[in-house]
Amino acid sequence: MKTVALDIRDRVRCESLRSLIMDPHEAAKLINDGDVIGASGFTPSGYPKEVPMAIARRKLETGSPSNLTLWCGASVGPELDGELTASGALARRFPYQTDDRLRKAINEGTVLFQDIHLSHGTQNLRYGFYGKMDVAIVEAVAINQDGSIVPSTSVGNSPTFVKMAEKVIVEVNVTQPMSLEGVHDIYIPGDPPSREPIPIASVSDRIGTPFIPCDPSKIVAIVPSDVPDKQRPLAAVDEVSARMARNLLDFLDVEVKAQRLPRDLFPLQSGVGEVANAVLAGFLEWPSENLRMYTEVIQDSMLDLIDAGKVSFASGTSFTPSPEGARRMYANMDLYRQRVILRPQEISNHPEVIRRLGVIAMNTAVEVDVYGHVNSTMALGSKMINGIGGSGDFARNGYLTVFLTPSTAKGGSISRIVPFCSHVDHTEHDVDVVVTEWGVADLRGLTPRERSVEIVGKCAHPDYRSALMDYIRRAQANGGHEPHDLKEAFSFHLRLIRNGSMLPVGGVRES
Amino acid sequence: MKTVALDIRDRVRCESLRSLIMDPHEAAKLINDGDVIGASGFTPSGYPKEVPMAIARRKLETGSPSNLTLWCGASVGPELDGELTASGALARRFPYQTDDRLRKAINEGTVLFQDIHLSHGTQNLRYGFYGKMDVAIVEAVAINQDGSIVPSTSVGNSPTFVKMAEKVIVEVNVTQPMSLEGVHDIYIPGDPPSREPIPIASVSDRIGTPFIPCDPSKIVAIVPSDVPDKQRPLAAVDEVSARMARNLLDFLDVEVKAQRLPRDLFPLQSGVGEVANAVLAGFLEWPSENLRMYTEVIQDSMLDLIDAGKVSFASGTSFTPSPEGARRMYANMDLYRQRVILRPQEISNHPEVIRRLGVIAMNTAVEVDVYGHVNSTMALGSKMINGIGGSGDFARNGYLTVFLTPSTAKGGSISRIVPFCSHVDHTEHDVDVVVTEWGVADLRGLTPRERSVEIVGKCAHPDYRSALMDYIRRAQANGGHEPHDLKEAFSFHLRLIRNGSMLPVGGVRES
Repeated sequence: MKTVALDIRDRVRCESLRSLIMDPHEAAKLINDGDVIGASGFTPSGYPKEVPMAIARRKLETGSPSNLTLWCGASVGPELDGELTASGALARRFPYQTDDRLRKAINEGTVLFQDIHLSHGTQNLRYGFYGKMDVAIVEAVAINQDGSIVPSTSVGNSPTFVKMAEKVIVEVNVTQPMSLEGVHDIYIPGDPPSREPIPIASVSDRIGTPFIPCDPSKIVAIVPSDVPDKQRPLAAVDEVSARMARNLLDFLDVEVKAQRLPRDLFPLQSGVGEVANAVLAGFLEWPSENLRMYTEVIQDSMLDLIDAGKVSFASGTSFTPSPEGARRMYANMDLYRQRVILRPQEISNHPEVIRRLGVIAMNTAVEVDVYGHVNSTMALGSKMINGIGGSGDFARNGYLTVFLTPSTAKGGSISRIVPFCSHVDHTEHDVDVVVTEWGVADLRGLTPRERSVEIVGKCAHPDYRSALMDYIRRAQANGGHEPHDLKEAFSFHLRLIRNGSMLPVGGVRES
Repeated sequence: MKTVALDIRDRVRCESLRSLIMDPHEAAKLINDGDVIGASGFTPSGYPKEVPMAIARRKLETGSPSNLTLWCGASVGPELDGELTASGALARRFPYQTDDRLRKAINEGTVLFQDIHLSHGTQNLRYGFYGKMDVAIVEAVAINQDGSIVPSTSVGNSPTFVKMAEKVIVEVNVTQPMSLEGVHDIYIPGDPPSREPIPIASVSDRIGTPFIPCDPSKIVAIVPSDVPDKQRPLAAVDEVSARMARNLLDFLDVEVKAQRLPRDLFPLQSGVGEVANAVLAGFLEWPSENLRMYTEVIQDSMLDLIDAGKVSFASGTSFTPSPEGARRMYANMDLYRQRVILRPQEISNHPEVIRRLGVIAMNTAVEVDVYGHVNSTMALGSKMINGIGGSGDFARNGYLTVFLTPSTAKGGSISRIVPFCSHVDHTEHDVDVVVTEWGVADLRGLTPRERSVEIVGKCAHPDYRSALMDYIRRAQANGGHEPHDLKEAFSFHLRLIRNGSMLPVGGVRES
């Protein structure tokens, strides 16, 4: 068992709080059965590690604490989601995840999970819809004289967790550099009936404090940590992703030439992952020196764009660099601090700000149906993959809403374009543009019958086009505004379950 | 053919414009084949009548104009949607409708229709996504000295139509009283990158002008009209609607007692129709004198609530009284003008304002599935009923989002609670509460497996509960976070198509 060896006294600027510095296993004893915990972290960045691992050890050794509810910003690292799941301590989790062990438990129904828009969580917590919060566990680079907390590599939901929780445990992580101080902008909106406009009119506007306000009497433990964020190396951009990126950039170029967008575009939002990385890399060729980002996660590709003089400012809620990216970022933090800002996710994802700024929303889809509904979360309609995350916050409110997906998966046995989505996260009302490696479907102003031709003709893989068109023709023969044949609506999915492939066997009429 | 007989000179305050006063058949000649028209109107209120009827007559007599695209605020009266459809002049219609003849044409595919969020239309028009607008046709009570237009019983999308259109035709309706002047508050948001916060912090805040600004040189015709709004008498509240209203009010009472809502509640939004009417009537018993509405349509029930001293202020985009309600309203307009305001629908439905104010959103559903997805638009997944209207604007952004539906339709042969919605307009991420005459399902914080029990147990009709629970049990046996059996997901709908009823025949396993 670890003992207090790391010297964090210079990072705990409030002398009276230094007596609370303790080992993680001591802090873990402050967690009770049934507690509702709010933990920092958004992606595997800025989440507590030592205390959750100690809670999991204690659960395995003593059987307690059990029946925990865990709120985070979004996904976090395995020291938190994975260990708490494996120990059996975790009963309920909000609002997004990407952990293998947790995902399995969610799909088995042993951990209960509600999938909610990332901008909604903290306001609903403050409204009292989910009951009280017992403990906040927040990773920090420092604690100020007045007890306020300087977060590390993410902000996420931490400000409201600290505000709501009865007790606060701070994990001071010495692997997180002090140069992060000043990059955060903490603002918690008021609640109805006295909520004011959020005064952001430009991505770089600062509206809050560089620390999370915290009543020092709520702090019950301060735990040193030297466990780094679980940064992951980036995969190289594959050919399919590169073609999707080129298609999207060509489309944006047409929009600029048609004067529907300025050459500097409007603030860009991009999801996380390989496709997003490829899309952002594509902007290295974009003829502008004043691109701006209003997004969730700041990854390597964004550092590249800043270094290349393409992006003048990036607003997010989390830094998620690769190990190489982190070295570069920390070596030049004084520069990046002029160009980046981390906000609470309630602000990075706020409908009010996204709509005002005219964000161009670029997110990935699990599947898209012939009328433009999007599944972002569920394999075969039932199995949770990760969650909706912020895609709904951005898709509904963006100036232009783009969903990207490769046209197929699993070596061509799955078509990402299907007759009817097996789960709907984004409706036809929220989807402007669909991009695959085959092309771009521009759905703006089109009626469902027109959309079906546009999506299948431009975006579906050629191997699936005739089966999709056949479905559409037969459905449309029955009439209706958005014609479906409910007997065959899931024929692609059922064929996949039955045959291991969505590809028609012996002709397109097969269902 | 009608000739100019009505004297509207005192309502045309700009002398130089009086020369443009003309008969509707003269004005109709200004419409060309393929024109994109933006017409005033939101519900059968404040829409132009004489000019559209003259366009339809001209089309029938001469074959022209054809291939028209028509934008309105939402639905309008039969003189506009019905006549233009019947004449064959109409090719494309945005963004919402309720007209029998138009609905038929949409479902036959002879009029193309795109169903979009009511708050999205005008911004996308200004962005240039739908091309240029040729003509705005706006009903008014008066035209000011500077050419600006005083609208009549609705604002809808008219301000942006007038701003965008190359030509403006004003229908001055003498049946609309001058006492409407002063009730409107016209504000068009700036567009990115220079859009500012919308400065509404309270339902009664005035932020614009009481008229629609209009360059007088764009006005090409002024047409007198004495055709009244197609006001409809209200149906009496039926027993099922009354039970739904009681269930909702009981639920709100619990929320107040739990201190999740103040006794004066937060601003209320309510859809249109029988159920909405019953719900609003229920508030006559609510122990508060300071209820406020931030909604789309101001109906009789709202006048009742104002008269009873329950509602202190109501903001909407349209007056839609019954004939009796209209008489009462116009007789007391000086009083109501202190208590009501009509805004552009981009403002009445704006996510920024709805979320800031903490609106309680109450809308009706066509069907709700066992996990809480909502169909608001499509019968059997294919046939357009009316459209999504503003339900998405309010549901996504409300403090509390409620969907109401009777548990069954067509004498019990249709269950409104189904295994899988045949069309999804609102996802599980946007639905807090479901209400039927049987009870209230409170979905906040619940995982899909919990939601299914809550919805079926509290809201489904007893005749359908065992079939629904049977579906859920068998689907959940396959595992997954939100388990479905795609083979049987539409079994209720297919049974309805086959048997004329969703009721199981000979046991619940039948599909």
